[in-house]
Amino acid sequence: MILNKTKSSIQEPRITLVGAGPGDPDLISLKGVKALNTADVVLYDALVNGALLNHAPEHAIKIFVGRSDDESFSQDAVNKLMIDYALNYGHVVRLKSGDPFVFARGFEEVDFAESYSIQTEIIPGISSATGVPGLHKIPMIYGDLSESFWVLSGTNSKGELSADLRGAAKSDATVVVLMGIERIKEIAAIFKQEGKDRLPVAVIENGSSKNENIIVGVVDTIAELIEDHQISSPALLVFGNVVSLHPAFSRIRDFYAILNEE
Amino acid sequence: MILNKTKSSIQEPRITLVGAGPGDPDLISLKGVKALNTADVVLYDALVNGALLNHAPEHAIKIFVGRSDDESFSQDAVNKLMIDYALNYGHVVRLKSGDPFVFARGFEEVDFAESYSIQTEIIPGISSATGVPGLHKIPMIYGDLSESFWVLSGTNSKGELSADLRGAAKSDATVVVLMGIERIKEIAAIFKQEGKDRLPVAVIENGSSKNENIIVGVVDTIAELIEDHQISSPALLVFGNVVSLHPAFSRIRDFYAILNEE
Repeated sequence: MILNKTKSSIQEPRITLVGAGPGDPDLISLKGVKALNTADVVLYDALVNGALLNHAPEHAIKIFVGRSDDESFSQDAVNKLMIDYALNYGHVVRLKSGDPFVFARGFEEVDFAESYSIQTEIIPGISSATGVPGLHKIPMIYGDLSESFWVLSGTNSKGELSADLRGAAKSDATVVVLMGIERIKEIAAIFKQEGKDRLPVAVIENGSSKNENIIVGVVDTIAELIEDHQISSPALLVFGNVVSLHPAFSRIRDFYAILNEE
Repeated sequence: MILNKTKSSIQEPRITLVGAGPGDPDLISLKGVKALNTADVVLYDALVNGALLNHAPEHAIKIFVGRSDDESFSQDAVNKLMIDYALNYGHVVRLKSGDPFVFARGFEEVDFAESYSIQTEIIPGISSATGVPGLHKIPMIYGDLSESFWVLSGTNSKGELSADLRGAAKSDATVVVLMGIERIKEIAAIFKQEGKDRLPVAVIENGSSKNENIIVGVVDTIAELIEDHQISSPALLVFGNVVSLHPAFSRIRDFYAILNEE
């Protein structure tokens, strides 16, 4: 909680939700930078690159509000902080990783702000789901390989494995799974049940950041590969034939071609 | 074709694919702006906002290469132009609307450039599929309403209605259809066959641009609404219960509530 300030020059309270993009600080939009330039307060998430805070004025208050899965920074607590700061300091920039309306609960925050009649603005960001595979030259759709893509969170809001995974595994879409790395064995099992043991998979850790990693494999071996390479969250999974376009996949293809000949 | 220049100071040829984002010129990434700042040549698409060209130096050559569905600017012709200019002028920025690896054939262009051993870089952009609904406060996933989203092009590379539409209509995912507005009757019919006559739908024309429009309705009436409001391409369709969160949907809900009471 913030003590009420009796400042005479309180600006009009307003809240701007800004998508910071997938990790590389230069992937924020120009519009996001401009919003930060006029921020009185910045509330930022764990996955947001710290360099972005340099776009805010020196006098601006910068507050880390952790990850939404951390209880000490519950959505409720963040919502209240946002309102408190807007009423007391003016322009609050809520800086969220990726895009605020994809997996980042932007709706909940805008909705809460509007219930206090505080003016809000939304500035989208590059979602890692769409931007990161492309950075590694894996297209979402391509010729005969894929006509569409399906994006899921590995677990739903209740912490259960998403019920949509089964449908996704049945589909011909490129399937992008965020926050699924810790449940990879169960997720791979769903694809195996659909007979997709050899469907290409890419795992991209810390996409677009300096410490990013990518591994490629097939459904059958991906859990083992993740363990071998000690890949951990944040990482995204891409299931689909488009992954076969990645240069590192040619070795795997050769391997299975040999197997098939035997 | 470009005549070969006998300039002594030709720079190292390189090609940067830049995603311009959905329409608002300030939605390009900071990294995209920096690439434009050092461009010798910019090859830009029809849907790219002209204001973005101001980020390129005055001396840079700016060339409109139309839409990929226009025969006079076939993918093949654009690929060749890209190489010609890189070899003759140095840094070519290929500026594409949205994200270059989502629906924009970025892979084909990078692949072609690499076959000439020209250094390439990819700078993702905000895909209208994910960024534009959020701008209208329609989240892709939300509590019990949706756990995932599925993005399709209305028609595939052969101009046929995408075969994935049927699976998408069966799924519980939020379904985003790009380039589907001209086939809306057939697309709506697929959802109707799944008994989804009253599934909420949003249509967003010129998303994030000054002349943007949004209409909301249900599957049963959406084709008529599009005609009444004279919505045309570029527009995206969002099918899913998350659309019911849009403020304009409350009137529709009231209307059907009255119908259900009768």
